[in-house]
Amino acid sequence: MPQFLDAREPGFEARFQALLGSKREDAPDVDDTVAAIIADVRQRGDEALVELTAKFDRLQLTPDTLAFTDDEIDAYCAQVPAAERAALELAAARIRAYHDRQLPRDESWTDEAGATLGWRWSPVSAAGLYVPGGLASYPSSVLMNAIPAQVAGVGRLVVTVPTPDGAVNPLVLLAARLAGVHEVYRIGGAQAIAALAYGTATVRPVDKITGPGNAFVAAAKRRVFGKVGIDMIAGPSEILVIADRDNDPDWIAADLLSQAEHDESAQSILITDDEAFGQAVARAVEARLETLERRAIAGPSWRDYGAVITVRDLAQAAELSDRIAPEHLELCVADADALAARITHAGAIFIGAWTPEAIGDYIGGPNHVLPTARSSRFSSGLSVLDFMKRTTLARMSPEALGAIGPAAETLARSESLEAHGLSVRLRLDRLNGAGQ
Amino acid sequence: MPQFLDAREPGFEARFQALLGSKREDAPDVDDTVAAIIADVRQRGDEALVELTAKFDRLQLTPDTLAFTDDEIDAYCAQVPAAERAALELAAARIRAYHDRQLPRDESWTDEAGATLGWRWSPVSAAGLYVPGGLASYPSSVLMNAIPAQVAGVGRLVVTVPTPDGAVNPLVLLAARLAGVHEVYRIGGAQAIAALAYGTATVRPVDKITGPGNAFVAAAKRRVFGKVGIDMIAGPSEILVIADRDNDPDWIAADLLSQAEHDESAQSILITDDEAFGQAVARAVEARLETLERRAIAGPSWRDYGAVITVRDLAQAAELSDRIAPEHLELCVADADALAARITHAGAIFIGAWTPEAIGDYIGGPNHVLPTARSSRFSSGLSVLDFMKRTTLARMSPEALGAIGPAAETLARSESLEAHGLSVRLRLDRLNGAGQ
Repeated sequence: MPQFLDAREPGFEARFQALLGSKREDAPDVDDTVAAIIADVRQRGDEALVELTAKFDRLQLTPDTLAFTDDEIDAYCAQVPAAERAALELAAARIRAYHDRQLPRDESWTDEAGATLGWRWSPVSAAGLYVPGGLASYPSSVLMNAIPAQVAGVGRLVVTVPTPDGAVNPLVLLAARLAGVHEVYRIGGAQAIAALAYGTATVRPVDKITGPGNAFVAAAKRRVFGKVGIDMIAGPSEILVIADRDNDPDWIAADLLSQAEHDESAQSILITDDEAFGQAVARAVEARLETLERRAIAGPSWRDYGAVITVRDLAQAAELSDRIAPEHLELCVADADALAARITHAGAIFIGAWTPEAIGDYIGGPNHVLPTARSSRFSSGLSVLDFMKRTTLARMSPEALGAIGPAAETLARSESLEAHGLSVRLRLDRLNGAGQ
Repeated sequence: MPQFLDAREPGFEARFQALLGSKREDAPDVDDTVAAIIADVRQRGDEALVELTAKFDRLQLTPDTLAFTDDEIDAYCAQVPAAERAALELAAARIRAYHDRQLPRDESWTDEAGATLGWRWSPVSAAGLYVPGGLASYPSSVLMNAIPAQVAGVGRLVVTVPTPDGAVNPLVLLAARLAGVHEVYRIGGAQAIAALAYGTATVRPVDKITGPGNAFVAAAKRRVFGKVGIDMIAGPSEILVIADRDNDPDWIAADLLSQAEHDESAQSILITDDEAFGQAVARAVEARLETLERRAIAGPSWRDYGAVITVRDLAQAAELSDRIAPEHLELCVADADALAARITHAGAIFIGAWTPEAIGDYIGGPNHVLPTARSSRFSSGLSVLDFMKRTTLARMSPEALGAIGPAAETLARSESLEAHGLSVRLRLDRLNGAGQ
């Protein structure tokens, strides 16, 4: 049974705060293991990669077979059925079209003091994308990570994907190809992150690492952060659906389950202004759970972390939503645009009942890598900007330095930074004819 | 003596790599202490803040005197001499004008499939700015952190600044006032970070924490990351100057010293295409060091980490610069704009000999919080975007779902995510008249 809360009842605030504070993830402490793996890869390079892959993935490689060859990738891509290829191609095109619009502008201007100012964006030189193996090896995630990098103009795009017992997902390789990935390595775990960050004889290092992974991968990303850039460390997935009574309970139930089936720690919450509708959705969820393929995952998620909250009205729903700051927010109400305008904190908003969240996972266009665990209060989903960096530019004319330099000198001296002041003063003296 | 390297000589590559890899920071391990302080503040709130401030800052406060009152701030601001006030006001105006241009655009469009897509930027609700006490209590840093937040539209701006033995820097309070800061607390160290992240009875929690600090502050920011957003953890400052022979060696010496005087671990590097000029600059540095107020800091920095590199030509200078990926890059050459165009990795570029880096520290307009330790390869200086987050938006018309939904269902099934597919299929069935 999920929790049923009623915002109109006394005691709601305490229960809601408990829901907000509930800890769903109990990450195992693998930091020592990961530190040892990273040190091993740094020291022994390819040799360590080969040994660790034999150990963890039961796969015997050599330095020469760490990477897939182009011919191998071609052969795997040819195995993908036409319908799946077409779907992946459509997804890639739509994701690219959305992300193309995120390319930032460079700026340059000269102000009234005569200072020419601005900034310039440039892509990182090389990016590495981690793709999990096994059950969580999602081709959609390859597109969502690699296409923003490709749009950013990243010169070298690398994928690492473990292939336990040699099992390869052809769709992952096709997605990599569609997204312009240049190199694909059959390695995973902390050893893959170490290779991407520090490089080996075979795997040249990258500047930025993104992509989801298990506890070992997450710990390794934390450790190499600073040496390279990383994306966020994502927590379990979440959906909040705000729905009024004029919805098919079965649609909303499917939407809630589409998060619950990801992970036993995932969280699905329904907020409605109609208590009976909430109960109808909960019944529909139970009915679907009887036959759902992943009921062993979705069931515990829904029963342990799911919640149905009845509110006074949609204004209250918006307030609670901002406190939850959900990763995914679905708005299935009559005037969904108006409700969307009231929301401040959410990773992605799916507006109207014809926009199930799953559209956003695959094919809508926006990125599906989104802030979890209430971090949409201060962070954003993956974008082209994550694969770019900005260099600020300043050029003073002698007149500009004459105009604003004295204030800089004053401030430098007030901070007891004499050389700062001196570097300005020497130039001002020249300008005033006092120098030399 | 700084290092002298010559890129035209054999053995240069090894020496250059050693320079790149030199570790300048030896951060003490204060993590256990910091963990205990954070736990204490979470548990005992204001009481812990008062006790820890008495212990570390030798200052007896009560919950009522944790914050400066408006009258106190007024009184301190009135102590600031007119010249310093005018300089700070000019700096604030110029920094604001620069950052105003960074405000990102919202986007919304409807594509040919009938999908309405876009994104919306919004400010974080509350931001906390840490300001160090003592020697490193820089009013310029208050402006550089608070103004981007103010421009972003952050609703609540909080400053924490320790006042050891009750010593207050009036310029810091004036800078806070000029930058629209709403609350200023007399607390510092890990306890201030804990209060900002978790809140106490007096200090409400914020969503994002920025600002420089010592090892305790840095460790505390790392620990609260996830609960709140943080900015980068900055390392020691760096400058790279590329200068040809047509420069005054004394100007370049002052520029190099303006980083060296920050910190014994700071690094100043000169690259020149004229060996004799490099030696002249080194002599000028030594001459200035004889009288510089901060010679006890700048001297060790220059002698331990400083370097003068002679190159074949400016093209090689640009190549080496990108490998160094400096925080600050000053280009004092005849065609500085052309050289700037060849640079890919740098936090900030100061173009031409009339643009000493110190202008950027105070008054140029661009932010002075910049990526250190080669991280300009993958990250950017502080900006308005650091105080905003992006929510992606998607709205499908029934026709749009009919057009692209089947591909989403195909991909969901290929990833064995049945409920994802179902959430789309139920709607497609209704559209096709099969449902209900």
